[in-house]
Amino acid sequence: MRTLRVELGERSYPIRIGSGLLSRADLLAPHLEQRRVAIVTNETVAPLYLAQVRSVAAARQPLEVILPDGEQYKTLEVVARIFDALLQARCDRRTMILALGGGVIGDMAGFAAACYQRGVPFIQIPTTLLAQVDSSVGGKTGVNHPLGKNMIGAFYQPQAVIIDTDTLRTLPDRELKAGIAEVIKYGLIRDAEFFVWLEKNLPRLLARDSEALSYAIEHSCRNKAEVVAKDERESGLRAVLNFGHTFGHAIETATEYRSWLHGEAIAAGMAMAADLSRRLGWLAEDEASRIRSLIKMAQLPDRAPPGIDNEQLRTLMEMDKKVESGRLRLVLLKRIGEAVVTADYPSPVLDQTIAAHVRIQ
Amino acid sequence: MRTLRVELGERSYPIRIGSGLLSRADLLAPHLEQRRVAIVTNETVAPLYLAQVRSVAAARQPLEVILPDGEQYKTLEVVARIFDALLQARCDRRTMILALGGGVIGDMAGFAAACYQRGVPFIQIPTTLLAQVDSSVGGKTGVNHPLGKNMIGAFYQPQAVIIDTDTLRTLPDRELKAGIAEVIKYGLIRDAEFFVWLEKNLPRLLARDSEALSYAIEHSCRNKAEVVAKDERESGLRAVLNFGHTFGHAIETATEYRSWLHGEAIAAGMAMAADLSRRLGWLAEDEASRIRSLIKMAQLPDRAPPGIDNEQLRTLMEMDKKVESGRLRLVLLKRIGEAVVTADYPSPVLDQTIAAHVRIQ
Repeated sequence: MRTLRVELGERSYPIRIGSGLLSRADLLAPHLEQRRVAIVTNETVAPLYLAQVRSVAAARQPLEVILPDGEQYKTLEVVARIFDALLQARCDRRTMILALGGGVIGDMAGFAAACYQRGVPFIQIPTTLLAQVDSSVGGKTGVNHPLGKNMIGAFYQPQAVIIDTDTLRTLPDRELKAGIAEVIKYGLIRDAEFFVWLEKNLPRLLARDSEALSYAIEHSCRNKAEVVAKDERESGLRAVLNFGHTFGHAIETATEYRSWLHGEAIAAGMAMAADLSRRLGWLAEDEASRIRSLIKMAQLPDRAPPGIDNEQLRTLMEMDKKVESGRLRLVLLKRIGEAVVTADYPSPVLDQTIAAHVRIQ
Repeated sequence: MRTLRVELGERSYPIRIGSGLLSRADLLAPHLEQRRVAIVTNETVAPLYLAQVRSVAAARQPLEVILPDGEQYKTLEVVARIFDALLQARCDRRTMILALGGGVIGDMAGFAAACYQRGVPFIQIPTTLLAQVDSSVGGKTGVNHPLGKNMIGAFYQPQAVIIDTDTLRTLPDRELKAGIAEVIKYGLIRDAEFFVWLEKNLPRLLARDSEALSYAIEHSCRNKAEVVAKDERESGLRAVLNFGHTFGHAIETATEYRSWLHGEAIAAGMAMAADLSRRLGWLAEDEASRIRSLIKMAQLPDRAPPGIDNEQLRTLMEMDKKVESGRLRLVLLKRIGEAVVTADYPSPVLDQTIAAHVRIQ
C-alpha cells in the first residue's frame, strides 16, 4: 500500500492507494469509532462494491443511501435525499459519511457531509480512475444547477481517501482512458519525470496492471495535493490544474455534455493548449509531438469532435469563467512539466490553433 | 458608532453598531468595490429598509432577492431561489451578498453565500434585536428540515455586521422583548456587571432609547464574540450560549413553535434553569429572585405556557441533542455571571423545577 498525505494544516488527511484496500478493516475502523456510519453510493457501484464496504463497517450497522447513477442526478434535490435519509435514521453530528463511487458521488456525498448539521466528517472511496486522481483530492464538493456546472458547493476536506485499484477492474475501457487524460495532465503541467514514465508505461495502465496503476495514481494525487496545499480555496496557483480545460469545457458545452466524457474533452483540450504553446514558440516542436503521441497512445482524441466550427468553439471559450477584463486567460506550457497561466498571447494565434483542431471550418 | 471585532484569525470581522448606519455609504462601500452586489431580504423588511441599502449600493446596481417572511420559509427550497436569482443575473464569484432582515434572512442568505460557487463573501445587516445580538455573531448559517431545525447549514463568517439601531423602531413590541431575553442571557452566563446595568436600564430598552440599545447590543455581541472566538465550531465551550435553551426548546416543540416566540420560550427556560440552580444550592436565593424580577420587568414569561404538563416537558427535554450517554446535560448557574455545563444533578430536583413551572400537573 502507498500512503501520501495532503498537507492542509489541521485539515490534513492521508490518501491510501493499493490493491484490496476495500476489504482492509484496519484502514476504515479507526475513523468509525463511536460514530454512526452512512454509506452513500449509486445503483451501478452498489452491486459491485457495497457488500465489501458494508462488511468492513458491519459493527456500526451502516445506513445505506443508494442514488441514481449519472451526472444528471448531481443536483441539490438529490443531495436533499441524502439529508432525508440521515434525518430519518436520526443520525446526529457523530456520523461518518463514506462516499463510495465516482466523482459525482464524491461531490454530492462530500457536499452533504459539509452541510449536514453544519458539517460531519466523511471519507472518499473513489471507484473510477478520474475520481481517484482528480476529484478525491482538493476538497471541492457540490452539485450542478440548470444554469451551470458545480455552481453550488463547498470546499470541504475528507478525513481520508481510500483508493482500491481493484475497483478499476470493472471500469469500462472508455472511462479508464478518460481518467488517463487527467493523469497525463499532471505530467504536462509540473512533473516531466512522470511524463517520461507515462511514455514508457502507458500500455501497462491500459492493461490495468495494478502496480502501474498504483504508481500513476500516487504520482497524480501527489502532484494535485502539492498544488492544493499551496492554494486550498483556488485563489490563483490552482488554476494550472485547469490545463486543457478551457478548450475542453467549450467542447463539452458545444456537445451538451453528451457525446464525449470529460476526460476525452480534456485530452483534446490539452492537445490544443500544447499546439498553441508550440505556435507561440514556447514549447519545442519535439515536445509538442511527444504530447500528441502520448494522447494518441492512450486512444484519446487530439482534436474537437465533428460538428463544431471555429466560431462556436471560440465563442464558448470566451464565455468561460476565466475571462478577465476582456482577455481570455489560458494555461499554457513553457515545456513539458512547466505550465503558466496567461492572457498574454496574440489572439490570431489562438484562432490558428482552433482552426487546426476543428473538423469543419 | 461603536465598533467591536470578532477575533477569528483570518476570518475576523468588525461589528458596527449605532443609529443611522444604514445610510452610511462609507461603511458598505469599501466592501463592494469590484463586486456585483445582491441584497437578500424579505417582503416585510423590503418596504421599510431596502431603499436605504439600495441607494448606498446604487453604483453597483444591486440585484434584489425578496423572499417570503417567516420561519416556515427557512428551507433548502427557498435558498435554491437565491441560487436561481444569482445565476440568472450571471453573478460570478466576485459577488457580495447583503443579508438584510432578521435571523431567518441572515441564516438563509449566509448559507447561500457559503455555497454559491463554493463561497462568496457576505455582510449581515440584521434588523431585529434577536438577530443583532444572537444570530449575526457566530457564523451559524443554514435552514430547517421537516425533521429538525437548523439541520442543514454551514459555519460561515460574514465580512462585517452592520447594526442600525434605528431599525428597531419598526420592530413589534413583542419581538423587541423576545430579543431582550437573549440580552439578559449574556448577563447571566458571563457578565454580572452587564446584568446590573440591565437591572437599572431595562426601561430604557423597552422605551427604545437608541443609546441604551447600542450599549446593550454592543455588550451582548462582545460576550457572544468572546465565546465564539474560543470555540468557532461549537466543540464545547460554546454550549454555555444554550443557557435556558433545553427548557425553551422543549416548550417550543410542545407548542409546535406557534404560540411563543423563541425569546419568550428562552425567557421561561432561563427562569427554570435559574430555579434548578437555586434548588441545587448553587445559586443564592436573592440572585434567583433578581433573575426572576428582571425577566418579569422585561414582560417576558417566567414559566411554561398553559397546556403542557410535567411528563411532556421532561420527555421533550430528553429528546434534546445534548443528552450524552443517558444523562441530560444542562447549562446551570453558579452565580449571576457564571455558567457551567453539567449532567451532575439529581434527577428528582429537575422534576421539582419542572413541576413548579408548568400550569397543569
